[in-house]
Amino acid sequence: MNAELQQLRERLQRVYDLNGISRLLHWDQATYMPPGGAPARARQTALIRQIAHREFTDPEIGRLLDALEPYAESLPPDHDDAALIRVTRRDYERATRIPPALVAEISEHTAQTYQVWTEARPANDFDRVAPYLEKTLELSRRVAECFPGYEHIADPLIDFADHGMTVAVIRPLFEELRKHLVPLAEAITAQEPPDDTCLHAHYPADEQLAFGQEVIRRFGYDFQRGRQDLTHHPFMTKFSLGDVRITTRVKEDDLSEALFSTLHEAGHALYEQGISPAYEGTPLARGASGGVHESQSRLWENLVGRSRPFWEFFYPRLQARFPDQLGRVSLETFYRAINKVQRSLIRTDADEVTYNLHVMIRFDLELQLLEGELHVRDLPEAWRARYEQDLGVVPPDDRDGVLQDVHWYAGLIGGGFQSYTLGNIMSAPFFEAALNAHPEIVEEMRRGEFGTLHAWLKEHIYRHGAKFTPAELVERVTGQSLTVEPYVRYLWRKFGALYGVMQPQA
Amino acid sequence: MNAELQQLRERLQRVYDLNGISRLLHWDQATYMPPGGAPARARQTALIRQIAHREFTDPEIGRLLDALEPYAESLPPDHDDAALIRVTRRDYERATRIPPALVAEISEHTAQTYQVWTEARPANDFDRVAPYLEKTLELSRRVAECFPGYEHIADPLIDFADHGMTVAVIRPLFEELRKHLVPLAEAITAQEPPDDTCLHAHYPADEQLAFGQEVIRRFGYDFQRGRQDLTHHPFMTKFSLGDVRITTRVKEDDLSEALFSTLHEAGHALYEQGISPAYEGTPLARGASGGVHESQSRLWENLVGRSRPFWEFFYPRLQARFPDQLGRVSLETFYRAINKVQRSLIRTDADEVTYNLHVMIRFDLELQLLEGELHVRDLPEAWRARYEQDLGVVPPDDRDGVLQDVHWYAGLIGGGFQSYTLGNIMSAPFFEAALNAHPEIVEEMRRGEFGTLHAWLKEHIYRHGAKFTPAELVERVTGQSLTVEPYVRYLWRKFGALYGVMQPQA
Repeated sequence: MNAELQQLRERLQRVYDLNGISRLLHWDQATYMPPGGAPARARQTALIRQIAHREFTDPEIGRLLDALEPYAESLPPDHDDAALIRVTRRDYERATRIPPALVAEISEHTAQTYQVWTEARPANDFDRVAPYLEKTLELSRRVAECFPGYEHIADPLIDFADHGMTVAVIRPLFEELRKHLVPLAEAITAQEPPDDTCLHAHYPADEQLAFGQEVIRRFGYDFQRGRQDLTHHPFMTKFSLGDVRITTRVKEDDLSEALFSTLHEAGHALYEQGISPAYEGTPLARGASGGVHESQSRLWENLVGRSRPFWEFFYPRLQARFPDQLGRVSLETFYRAINKVQRSLIRTDADEVTYNLHVMIRFDLELQLLEGELHVRDLPEAWRARYEQDLGVVPPDDRDGVLQDVHWYAGLIGGGFQSYTLGNIMSAPFFEAALNAHPEIVEEMRRGEFGTLHAWLKEHIYRHGAKFTPAELVERVTGQSLTVEPYVRYLWRKFGALYGVMQPQA
Repeated sequence: MNAELQQLRERLQRVYDLNGISRLLHWDQATYMPPGGAPARARQTALIRQIAHREFTDPEIGRLLDALEPYAESLPPDHDDAALIRVTRRDYERATRIPPALVAEISEHTAQTYQVWTEARPANDFDRVAPYLEKTLELSRRVAECFPGYEHIADPLIDFADHGMTVAVIRPLFEELRKHLVPLAEAITAQEPPDDTCLHAHYPADEQLAFGQEVIRRFGYDFQRGRQDLTHHPFMTKFSLGDVRITTRVKEDDLSEALFSTLHEAGHALYEQGISPAYEGTPLARGASGGVHESQSRLWENLVGRSRPFWEFFYPRLQARFPDQLGRVSLETFYRAINKVQRSLIRTDADEVTYNLHVMIRFDLELQLLEGELHVRDLPEAWRARYEQDLGVVPPDDRDGVLQDVHWYAGLIGGGFQSYTLGNIMSAPFFEAALNAHPEIVEEMRRGEFGTLHAWLKEHIYRHGAKFTPAELVERVTGQSLTVEPYVRYLWRKFGALYGVMQPQA
């Protein structure tokens, strides 16, 4: 075997394992750690990240990559070794181009900003975080400038999460999507809203969790290589391909909270559990991009988990677990309740139709900030104006307005939001492609079986890990480049039928 | 501030935090990790230990210690900085004197041996592990030889766990103790054994755990700086002074399993939680020795937790939790049940009287192996002979004989067992000293209060961490060097009364 490739793999495995350890530190902090553990945990996390960064940016990795270049060029581009060298090179460039001093400055600044935000949000005090946000904006620009040659200053930041995606690609997609979503939301919210009181009876936590686990076990989530625990803000995390964990939170007066966050995180986890074991310990052992990852969480949460065929099987089982709460609630009533569309203020609580309107507002504001077209001091007002325009609601305060999401207060400005909507857009053509290949998937869902769907996703998406770029993957899976049509079609078909509204003819 | 001391502290804190991370990896593996996580976890653990070892054995630490020597010598020996430099020097010598190649060889060999033992024990096949044990013995001797100048070849190995203790110190103590224990056990087991069927009703796990936590909360275990989880083999672990966790296991048909392992591990945890925060991040932030640590787990488990005053308060509360199981069982019956003495084969199940006989057999056999007086092939027979002689029982097979404890099969031979009995011996004079200073402790125990005892132990033992050697600590706390008399007195007084037997006059 190629000695340099072997050496590179050994070094990459160390970095991979250090990153796995770093995620365990976070998982423990977010699930079981007692409060007294916090000061040392902050040190431990910073230390392990520093060691991982140092090991990955070791010039020897650059030397090995250079030495392997002729080998990589001799291979077809979709050869695993070529992909490994290509993706490692990309990661290495990213890691080494940002000066360590800037990395440290960002790390310190975002930790401070987050701290201030945790106090400013409940106090509804945007002015307190504004100076921090100014600095974050400056740091974000400086990071982007480490990658000269971009067309839009946000492009390098977007590229970190969604490689190959740019403002030039995303902006028209999002504009097209908004053109469809605004009238759909308007048409729906002109109707009588469905009654969702059935979701707000008392649902004991243990039974809720048991039901969610019953569902994701049927999806194919492997509990021998994962587990579910409770946390404040649900997430999926991976310590190795054999240990992919999910978390959730339970509200005993809201059945949808634990259930749909479980399906969502399980979607992320199915992706990671499905990556080829041959990629373990390398940069290929992760999802293709933020957007592709989100396409899988949303596919399982929404296209499967909020569909009628799914509930034809699971609703009687849910009723059996909660006879007092749901025994006299019809499937139709329940199905409408979990698909209630409403104009709302909070992104994370939003339904399938309005969710992307929330996301795209943030994306547009990010670009305007980075472009210098919008000043931080004018951000709250811009936020309110866009909410009124796109969603028809105005936040009464900044707490539920510009202060609501952690992203800008715990990281850079730019590159953090587009993945959500890219994922939603991708979820539909991916699901369509699966259904085209295996129309029986719908019938299987009616029987609580997901083997065909899961196997197809694994074969066409999951096993490849980060081998392909999101654009390549979309092309391979759907035979064409990304468009919003399948997603818009899906939304109109589902919600048109639900709310008795018709798509206006173009 | 002394710049070299500051640099040393920074390096020590990194090593300390890496060790904390290593323990988190183990805690997770022993509590929540799914089976699929095992291969990566083995790699992660080896990696973090390797990094910690590399950082601690960095010659720069040796240089800083040398540079700090004049400063240390200028201080009174019990100055914190002097202690820090002294204890770090000792750890550094230990870590650097064993050649890295030998460390690696031991690590690989013990991992293999452990694997073989997990199969050989259920198969009752000593012959399978014997060649591995031969190698372990050789490696143990080679480690000892890295520390020339010892009187007995086991001394360096003992010193790792119980600094300053030697065969010359321990052997007479243990011989003296055995002289008392053998007749005590004989006198007791000649009596009618107490009826302990009350411990074997059905006790639901949740209630058992809640009761144990009620007790240790009263002991002073701080759940803001710790937590309890389930595992196979209970242990205490520490990620920082603010995060000291315990684990237990529950048998629903054996009330004593979870309860006493909880009190035992809480004893260890009280020690760690009580260490001076000024020592955080340094080698002083740990117990003084294996023996002193065990003295605290046993003090809280046995001298407190199996005492009559303790149960005068807690038994009615236990009955209230388990009215069907214990409502008609008297305090006296219960107290006798949890203090049942019997000749048994398994160390970990042994009662207070016979426990140390089990330990001392292992200690003696270790010494004979290291001395070359006993061959590995003759070990099973020697084991049986000693059990017959000291405990009056003969293991019917090696599974419950020489194969029963993991120690020799997962580490070196020598230095692993003496701490248990040293701890038991120490527990009595420590407790006596506390009672002499505060006779009201007994009355407080009858009210479920432990504040005076806990504060006294913290003041005289816990807060000092590893500042003093075990011998120094015993001297400081009790005013004399370690003897078995207080422990023997305690046992005769308690069990003499319980079983109606009298100590023969010397």
